[in-house]
Amino acid sequence: MERKEFRDLVSPERAHEAVGSLELSPGTERVSLADASGRVLAERIDARIDVPGFDRASLDGYAVRARDTFDADEASPAELDLCGTVHAGETPDVAVDPGDCVAVSTGSVLPPGADAVVMVEETEERGSTVAVRTRVAPGEAVMFAGTDVAAGDRALGPGTRLTSREVGLLSALGADTVPVRAKPRVAIVSTGDELVRPGKELDPARGEIHDVNSYSVAAGVEEAGGEAVLYPHVGDDYEEMEHLLREAAADCDLVLSSGSTSASAVDVIYRVVDDGGDLLLHGVAIKPGKPMLVGRLDDAAYVGLPGYPVSALTIFRTFVAPAIRRAAGLPDPQTATVSGRMAVRERYAEGRLRLMPVGLVDPGSDDREGPDDLLVYPVDKGSGATTSLVEADGVVEMPADVEYLDRGETVEVALFSPDLRPPTLLLAGEDDPALSRLLDQVTRPRHLPVGSREGLRRLRKGAIDAAVVAGPTDQATPSTPVAEWDREWGLAVTEGSEIEALSDLVDRDIRFVNRTTASGLRTSLDDAMGELAVKRGVDRHELEARVAGYDAGVRAHESPVRAVVCGDADAGLGLRATAERLGLPFQSLGTQTVRVLAAPARAQKPGVRALTDAVAGGAAFADLTGYPASSANDETR
Amino acid sequence: MERKEFRDLVSPERAHEAVGSLELSPGTERVSLADASGRVLAERIDARIDVPGFDRASLDGYAVRARDTFDADEASPAELDLCGTVHAGETPDVAVDPGDCVAVSTGSVLPPGADAVVMVEETEERGSTVAVRTRVAPGEAVMFAGTDVAAGDRALGPGTRLTSREVGLLSALGADTVPVRAKPRVAIVSTGDELVRPGKELDPARGEIHDVNSYSVAAGVEEAGGEAVLYPHVGDDYEEMEHLLREAAADCDLVLSSGSTSASAVDVIYRVVDDGGDLLLHGVAIKPGKPMLVGRLDDAAYVGLPGYPVSALTIFRTFVAPAIRRAAGLPDPQTATVSGRMAVRERYAEGRLRLMPVGLVDPGSDDREGPDDLLVYPVDKGSGATTSLVEADGVVEMPADVEYLDRGETVEVALFSPDLRPPTLLLAGEDDPALSRLLDQVTRPRHLPVGSREGLRRLRKGAIDAAVVAGPTDQATPSTPVAEWDREWGLAVTEGSEIEALSDLVDRDIRFVNRTTASGLRTSLDDAMGELAVKRGVDRHELEARVAGYDAGVRAHESPVRAVVCGDADAGLGLRATAERLGLPFQSLGTQTVRVLAAPARAQKPGVRALTDAVAGGAAFADLTGYPASSANDETR
Repeated sequence: MERKEFRDLVSPERAHEAVGSLELSPGTERVSLADASGRVLAERIDARIDVPGFDRASLDGYAVRARDTFDADEASPAELDLCGTVHAGETPDVAVDPGDCVAVSTGSVLPPGADAVVMVEETEERGSTVAVRTRVAPGEAVMFAGTDVAAGDRALGPGTRLTSREVGLLSALGADTVPVRAKPRVAIVSTGDELVRPGKELDPARGEIHDVNSYSVAAGVEEAGGEAVLYPHVGDDYEEMEHLLREAAADCDLVLSSGSTSASAVDVIYRVVDDGGDLLLHGVAIKPGKPMLVGRLDDAAYVGLPGYPVSALTIFRTFVAPAIRRAAGLPDPQTATVSGRMAVRERYAEGRLRLMPVGLVDPGSDDREGPDDLLVYPVDKGSGATTSLVEADGVVEMPADVEYLDRGETVEVALFSPDLRPPTLLLAGEDDPALSRLLDQVTRPRHLPVGSREGLRRLRKGAIDAAVVAGPTDQATPSTPVAEWDREWGLAVTEGSEIEALSDLVDRDIRFVNRTTASGLRTSLDDAMGELAVKRGVDRHELEARVAGYDAGVRAHESPVRAVVCGDADAGLGLRATAERLGLPFQSLGTQTVRVLAAPARAQKPGVRALTDAVAGGAAFADLTGYPASSANDETR
Repeated sequence: MERKEFRDLVSPERAHEAVGSLELSPGTERVSLADASGRVLAERIDARIDVPGFDRASLDGYAVRARDTFDADEASPAELDLCGTVHAGETPDVAVDPGDCVAVSTGSVLPPGADAVVMVEETEERGSTVAVRTRVAPGEAVMFAGTDVAAGDRALGPGTRLTSREVGLLSALGADTVPVRAKPRVAIVSTGDELVRPGKELDPARGEIHDVNSYSVAAGVEEAGGEAVLYPHVGDDYEEMEHLLREAAADCDLVLSSGSTSASAVDVIYRVVDDGGDLLLHGVAIKPGKPMLVGRLDDAAYVGLPGYPVSALTIFRTFVAPAIRRAAGLPDPQTATVSGRMAVRERYAEGRLRLMPVGLVDPGSDDREGPDDLLVYPVDKGSGATTSLVEADGVVEMPADVEYLDRGETVEVALFSPDLRPPTLLLAGEDDPALSRLLDQVTRPRHLPVGSREGLRRLRKGAIDAAVVAGPTDQATPSTPVAEWDREWGLAVTEGSEIEALSDLVDRDIRFVNRTTASGLRTSLDDAMGELAVKRGVDRHELEARVAGYDAGVRAHESPVRAVVCGDADAGLGLRATAERLGLPFQSLGTQTVRVLAAPARAQKPGVRALTDAVAGGAAFADLTGYPASSANDETR
């Protein structure tokens, strides 16, 4: 296997320069006014008409000669002859001579002769005359032609971002189309034989995965003001790849390749761009995201993103999005930065800038040191993990020469968006279908499904608000129980398998899928196995060894049941709720209690209380089998 | 004329409650993943598959049994038999037995028997064997099935706003469509016989104006996450209006009427909603925007906005946009608030809450008192003025019981958007075509075309950075000249009119259009008229009285010339540049100097310097007739 290695990495500054040197010049286009909001004006707009185009009554009332009202007051009103009416949208068919007045509405053309309007509230109509009870100055309640906008005025400058306010002014000027900067067209080419478009079934045996980067990077392109063009994705064939990249380069301002993590796909792209274009750099000293190609291909700019989703989106956000915004004429967004304290110690010593995704948690009023005293915890499940994308709230920069960040150390977090708010509740621990529903009733919750054991460990370290624990635990952790409910666990089995007890698992030749030891279900199963061993007077491990697959547990709480559905196993450890939802017979082995244990200082956080309320409400358990609703309502037990 | 008056105004709080009580429930829809960014998830998404779906190599290297490497180090590498290769996207056709290894790429399925991957950098291929120079632990460089997302995990909760990051996770889960909240459909019905859609010619004699509110409110609806539906606009006929409103109510979640300022149109709408629906309130104690209708019409919510553009958009932003965002599931945007000092004293005593549009100006380093020490000036050209929309940066709330804000008083400004930045240069004074072009080279400039005289007045009050003054002035204002250029002025005349001098204007029967006395051109014309009077030995005013239209000046700098184009006048006061651009013969009467006079403390502001540089560059004058380019480059004159 020939492998391409990227050893000569450039600094992030050099990478910014290289991307900046690629000129994206999408030109201009005309759009209709209805589509103009959010776009950026390409040219100065000078007014070609006066607004208003006529002297305009700005109140409902009577058009008068101001001079005729100079002696009027409440006690001795001026009596004027009412000689007509002008509605808005009508050409006046009457003039205002001395001693006359004409009824006008807001927006009417001021009739000839008049130079002011008296508001209706200051008048009284008496048949053919009107009593005016106040004096008005010339020009009062009249908007003279061109007062708003004068023909020739510079109305809006090039580069103005159009919002509802500018659209209003453009309407007033009569513009029905507007010259705006064209959106940079960005081709997204995803590669790799293992990639499958979302919506299609995967073959895991072949190592197939869904194409993540095409859609997430396309969304990023649109967020940055570009127009994403998705190309059909191709394998690692040189000819095919070259054809596709050149087609994309001919049609777009920027070509982004992305998708595969495999060296051979990257290598093919590398060669196409190196042969047919101009490669400026092929690696940047940053984590995540070291492999990055920057160059030109025919008339387009080209950037190759790393294959891992977190790396791809990080490199995109850091280096590519600013270039797209610049080309689109959009300002860099206000990066909201918050400061916080590290919830844990984080070591790092790889000698390149690290953009560390982090999550935030508000420790709540009791544990707070200041108004901005958020806790910051690294979210690092590896660049291959897409959940890192959504479990993080922002990024902390660790310079190349920093070896660690200490627990409690203050760091600056650049939020992913200025209006991002941290979760109100941060849980870690057991998976549970009822918990998933309960969290629907909490605003911005975050649950890290790491199993009971790891949940308790994080609770002890103060890194979460509460742990979700299922089944027996032998660990004493200072905590405040804030909610609990029972659930039925056991074996999901194939139709007609006649597995009726744990002993069947031990005594018959059954393909079994277990959970990992981090899981509360596994703990309960191990305990049940222990009881059976005692009953039979043998060692527990001896029984376990007789069950094919007992030690090879899976992490996912539905996976054992799904393995039975697929025919890959005869029995899987799981919940009654899961088995019934997936349509499998279920053999109950017992009931276990799921407990939510809060850090004592955070038991009164609004998010924790919202979860407690949701449990007490009971709705989440209503049509969920295996969950006695009563237990949810009985927290004092 | 029958008139509807709105005397019983409710408080802004009551109005918020009334709008809040209108339930907008747009329901849900499924969109493709490519269109999901920016939308709000309608349901919880639980994972249905493990991600990855198989044990996955996370590096390029060799799949091994970790146990086989336990004694390996740099000095004595482990020598393993290379028995195959697994590429990403391939089903392994080989197993790893003790002493074996298999070449894998990032993303490959881990072959059976292997439990770790050694990175290629720590190995050396020697024909049919591989030397492994380091020990690896079981699980190293392997991402086990379900480690990223486990089947059954709660992936994303209802109400989650989808960004590129969530789109990435949804892709990984294989979702090709996503259930999202439907956008509230908002009908926009504009009314009034005087309204004309942008793009169509106006008849100013009839008092026609362009429909501003339809487009600006539609843009506001889209900004708030709704879908705007523009209806053809109708006049003040009851039947027609009723038909249209009911059609809109049947098709949309919310009907907004808007457009006309005329009482009769408002009255018709009032009666339709009052007859056929449920009117909750019909006036709110707020300025601008007192007339506001809130109610229900058939199955839709209904809000009637005031007719004036500033009022309509203010009421929309204050009361309606939050309801649309709520229905769309979007959070209220982070309102950026800045504090500043009032640049002028502002009186107010109308007894209702005033939302005062204000502009901001950074006084520059010399005049600064603190980092947030912006100057705040009211932008109030009347609710009828659309330029108020774009000349303001935000809003200051003046409570009903506040009578004035003093000059220098600190106020809080709610910016129109969080990423709004104040202009770098605030000018007021003369209009000038070269100035319009020069400002294209300044970042975020703002010029208020108020004429030379008013510009100087504002400069004295410290409310602007610099005044733009043309022609002679008799006022001594402390200022620093920062730029100047010459321009040719005179008369734009009809083809063949043979007007060759100022005396023709006086001696012949010519329809003339003048500028107002605020204008520098008018000052120069008055001076020239004075010289002619001296020459003839008569009084200047006697000559002026002989020119039809001399006293009735217009505000807009192009309007006199445009009046000649339209045939409404024989001669108009203007610039050579304007006359030639509009294709009219031009009779020069002289050259005047346009001067930019900065407040001395602000002469070094970056925006002022950018303008000076643009003048020195000369490009703005290049193809503009009537502007000797030399004067632009000769600032020392």
